[in-house]
Amino acid sequence: MNRRIVLASRPEGEPLAENFRIEEAPLPVPAEGEALVRNLYLSLDPYMRGRMMAVKSYARHVELGEVMVGQTVGEVVESRASGLESGDKVLTSLGWQLYGAAKAAELRRVDAQRAPLTYYLGSVVGQLAKSMGCRAVGIAGGPEKCAWVREGLGFDACVDYKAGNLYDDLRAACPDGVHVHFENVGGAVLDTVLRLMNPFSRLVLCGLVSDYNATEPYGLKNIRAVLVNRIRMQGMIVFDWADRYGEALAGLAALHDAGRLKVRESVLDGLERAPEALIGLLRGRNFGKQLVRLA
Amino acid sequence: MNRRIVLASRPEGEPLAENFRIEEAPLPVPAEGEALVRNLYLSLDPYMRGRMMAVKSYARHVELGEVMVGQTVGEVVESRASGLESGDKVLTSLGWQLYGAAKAAELRRVDAQRAPLTYYLGSVVGQLAKSMGCRAVGIAGGPEKCAWVREGLGFDACVDYKAGNLYDDLRAACPDGVHVHFENVGGAVLDTVLRLMNPFSRLVLCGLVSDYNATEPYGLKNIRAVLVNRIRMQGMIVFDWADRYGEALAGLAALHDAGRLKVRESVLDGLERAPEALIGLLRGRNFGKQLVRLA
Repeated sequence: MNRRIVLASRPEGEPLAENFRIEEAPLPVPAEGEALVRNLYLSLDPYMRGRMMAVKSYARHVELGEVMVGQTVGEVVESRASGLESGDKVLTSLGWQLYGAAKAAELRRVDAQRAPLTYYLGSVVGQLAKSMGCRAVGIAGGPEKCAWVREGLGFDACVDYKAGNLYDDLRAACPDGVHVHFENVGGAVLDTVLRLMNPFSRLVLCGLVSDYNATEPYGLKNIRAVLVNRIRMQGMIVFDWADRYGEALAGLAALHDAGRLKVRESVLDGLERAPEALIGLLRGRNFGKQLVRLA
Repeated sequence: MNRRIVLASRPEGEPLAENFRIEEAPLPVPAEGEALVRNLYLSLDPYMRGRMMAVKSYARHVELGEVMVGQTVGEVVESRASGLESGDKVLTSLGWQLYGAAKAAELRRVDAQRAPLTYYLGSVVGQLAKSMGCRAVGIAGGPEKCAWVREGLGFDACVDYKAGNLYDDLRAACPDGVHVHFENVGGAVLDTVLRLMNPFSRLVLCGLVSDYNATEPYGLKNIRAVLVNRIRMQGMIVFDWADRYGEALAGLAALHDAGRLKVRESVLDGLERAPEALIGLLRGRNFGKQLVRLA
């Protein structure tokens, strides 16, 4: 039997356990050209909050009763696709379930010898900046996370947004202003960083997690900085870049081989804990990449 | 004697007449390499409101007692610079005064035979879009301005932001969404347009006139559109592009020669009316390009 978590109802504000329902279902049967995959790890990511809502976005939302979306790493247990064999480890978009069938083109083989499987689900923007010779400054919640960013990840500085002094602390951490900002949070953090951005600087808008549970969106005060400093702000969704995942994986693997990627993970055990993992992630409770071990 | 308008005090909210002071002063004497220019027309532009404030921006603010900044077209009355002769018509940055001396490199000769002098102070973004084959949709205040934009300028549509129905009216005018938006207003207009922007669309942030008199900046609600639709937003200040003014002028002149540029101007007479012209411009009272005739 398969087990899966489906969307039971749509949240208002913060998602609750009751918005999800766990179900049993027959094991999927792969069609010709497909493989049956047993999921090993599920990645939890803030975008999932958006998919729970019936609003137009860059991707189709999850319907009531449908399996929650998500990336996993898994193992092929039965293949009817050329190029895939039982035992192959793959990246998938099979979502919150123990098993799924997918076309070969929707699965990406990964090398379990080269790096732990969970690393294929991670994200490491600040470390990439550092590896390219940038001065890297993190923003994190609480002294423990900040210490990890500085001492564990090797950032030049990390500012605690919960300390109540974000503008002054960021200004001290960025004495020459901000040349490139990668935004995943939004709200007051984005508003504050905008005040410190340099002329002709660049801002990648990749996420706005502080807004995802909000019933009223935050009103951004400092958009004038974009004008005054001729900032280039670019919205970015990683799925647009699927044709360059191979290139990215090769670059990340080379950094990993050289011992230059550090990974910290928060892992919960068991599919039934996926809702708790997402709810915690949206509250900033995770310390590092949030995962659920499925098998 | 020269006459000039200087900044007397800094406004809070809307500028008032008392923030300006008119003065007489000796006629400037051009140094070697400079020319003395008699200003004929002064251009009024929203950015001037920003220069009245002592805050960091893309350009130095005006000090109390200094001549207000501004572009003019004028006539060389005495030249001590090679390449400039008495009678030459020039674009200048001499500001709110009847006469000024400037280095030759700070003056750009214009051709009074080819187009009326005032046209060299204008801006015609929507018409450029139309000339390049785009569907062009304007946003203007009131039915009279909208009729001019449609029937005078030849836009495909124009929406009246004062009619109280901006989102629905814009959606009707842009049935395929917005591919490129040129923003000069900000506030509720920008917030509304963001909702209609297409995936991978582009937004040029050139001005935020609705905010310039505000004591509290508008809180922008729909920045999430930049993320969801991977919008590229780019701040733009025309002065950054001075090295391409020649190219721009040649392109505009060709369009003008072909009868494809329409110009509408609001002209007030006399230097002493420049404060009134700026105050009115910031209230949207101008109909077309706001100018003051100086001579």
